Amino acid sequence: MAEKGNLAIGVDLGGTSLYAAIVNTDTGQIYGEAKRKTQAELGAVGVADRVAQAVEEALAQAGINRKRLIGMGVGVPGPIDTETGIVIRLTNLGPTWEGFPLAQTLGRRLKMPVVVENDVNVGAVGEHCFGAGRGCSDMVALFVGTGLGGGVILGGQLRTGFRGSAGEVGHMLVQADGELCGCGERGHAEAYASRTAIERSIRAAIAAGEPSMLAEVLQQGCSLLTSKYIERAYEAGDSVTVRAIQSAQYYLGLLIADCVNLLDPEAIVVGGGVLERMGDAYLEPVRGFARQHFLNKHAMESVRIVAAELGDSSGAVGAAVQAVRRLKGAA
Amino acid sequence: MAEKGNLAIGVDLGGTSLYAAIVNTDTGQIYGEAKRKTQAELGAVGVADRVAQAVEEALAQAGINRKRLIGMGVGVPGPIDTETGIVIRLTNLGPTWEGFPLAQTLGRRLKMPVVVENDVNVGAVGEHCFGAGRGCSDMVALFVGTGLGGGVILGGQLRTGFRGSAGEVGHMLVQADGELCGCGERGHAEAYASRTAIERSIRAAIAAGEPSMLAEVLQQGCSLLTSKYIERAYEAGDSVTVRAIQSAQYYLGLLIADCVNLLDPEAIVVGGGVLERMGDAYLEPVRGFARQHFLNKHAMESVRIVAAELGDSSGAVGAAVQAVRRLKGAA
Repeated sequence: MAEKGNLAIGVDLGGTSLYAAIVNTDTGQIYGEAKRKTQAELGAVGVADRVAQAVEEALAQAGINRKRLIGMGVGVPGPIDTETGIVIRLTNLGPTWEGFPLAQTLGRRLKMPVVVENDVNVGAVGEHCFGAGRGCSDMVALFVGTGLGGGVILGGQLRTGFRGSAGEVGHMLVQADGELCGCGERGHAEAYASRTAIERSIRAAIAAGEPSMLAEVLQQGCSLLTSKYIERAYEAGDSVTVRAIQSAQYYLGLLIADCVNLLDPEAIVVGGGVLERMGDAYLEPVRGFARQHFLNKHAMESVRIVAAELGDSSGAVGAAVQAVRRLKGAA
Repeated sequence: MAEKGNLAIGVDLGGTSLYAAIVNTDTGQIYGEAKRKTQAELGAVGVADRVAQAVEEALAQAGINRKRLIGMGVGVPGPIDTETGIVIRLTNLGPTWEGFPLAQTLGRRLKMPVVVENDVNVGAVGEHCFGAGRGCSDMVALFVGTGLGGGVILGGQLRTGFRGSAGEVGHMLVQADGELCGCGERGHAEAYASRTAIERSIRAAIAAGEPSMLAEVLQQGCSLLTSKYIERAYEAGDSVTVRAIQSAQYYLGLLIADCVNLLDPEAIVVGGGVLERMGDAYLEPVRGFARQHFLNKHAMESVRIVAAELGDSSGAVGAAVQAVRRLKGAA
């Protein structure tokens, strides 16, 4: 089936679901895939087992001899020691992940070399290779969802940093001593431009007695304002929601301007749940705010600020690519 | 005299003075140098003439046959088209610089190839090659003076960006919609952590009636609170000055944390007039503020935050290095 090119497994391990794909890392083609609930309550060992099952299912679907595979890349939502494949911590997945040797565990089980990376960093690699950033030498990816993450590609390669900790775009400062961020610090872009930030503004406005169609949703006991609810209220012109979204767009624009003023990349690729749901219409005001804040406005007119193209598969595809690069010594 | 290594001229062209040096770009050694007042009122043609005179003086001092020189690099305080060596604008030097073909003008006059770069970018190159950043693969340089500029070195090379506009560290956001920055935007690090920002806080406190030993200096008609005055008042424990400096140190720390969280460099090198005058004591609180705001605190403990070592010569030395790299096709 897979005639030419390097083949690898890519896995995107999230807090609620996990996705495994057999990827041709030269073309981006996916030959087989499988999705599962993560079931984080099973702990690190149990979840690793579910990853292995999903990989076996994807392999069976692809009908590929596993000897043709170069290895496997796993993107996880938190810091890891990329040299050893040991997880530092995965806050969303529980305490059993602290210090868990994920690369070793999966490598033994699946009998192949495993590389572990940050999920949004490999998402950036996926978009760079086969999505909205293809052909760019340098780009920054921003994924707007529950949090705000991303990655930096320079000279065609993921910028991992001197200690493997680079690319924390969501934790760049926009307002010193401002809103509390998910990381425990204050004033980061994530605290102003993520879905969680939009939700927090909406809740605050409703709590302050402002009328909103989302008040009813919250009264019905909905614990989370998902992008779906937010989109509906926005499209209906709900003023509380419109204001919350405009604020998030403003700060996302400021963050993009910061990245551009520092790194002058060819393109900025914006993806994640909020973008996928609301589409390019979400991005147009963001572009405007960003351009207003470029330092060298004339030169920077040509910065492309574009929507991500791979959707949910960017992480798995990028993880497979990064695994091949690292195992072949090219990253 | 200069036995081995590549030789080039490096020039640092500032708003008030200019400095030319004959540099061995393999060792950093300076064989001859000359300094002059810029006399910006002479306009671009007149100032270019003064640069050429300084270069001739430095050459005569070095006693080097100009045929041994690979070329010349000039660092200027503003944006340029690095491909053509045409100045975009130099706000501090007046309107005649807009669109001035500096590389061509100096190249014809001195009969050698000339490369023009941003002054703080080449300052970063100088510190990277022969100053506090030597041996680092990746570093960020920050120069705190009238403004706040710097440069980003990645993989041993100056990050110039896709359009030659990268490295605007002083214009990274710390407070959205905050204090007015020299660039016309609001909330940038320069508006909080430069000498100008320190001066503005002191003036505001004095205008509000707070007692300060600098009130007298201002009453005597001093138009500028130089680093010398500020240092004296700080050492004397003048509370208005101490508070203004602590605020600048805090924001400089936040800026450093931002650079580290995004790029995870090996080192941060901090120089410029304020640092040179106040020394490493200025940097110690900055280190503390930065470390408090590193996202990955454990891994980032090893980030070196160090004082620049080359002082005033970093720009000229870096300009010479960058000229050799570009003329030899290595940058």
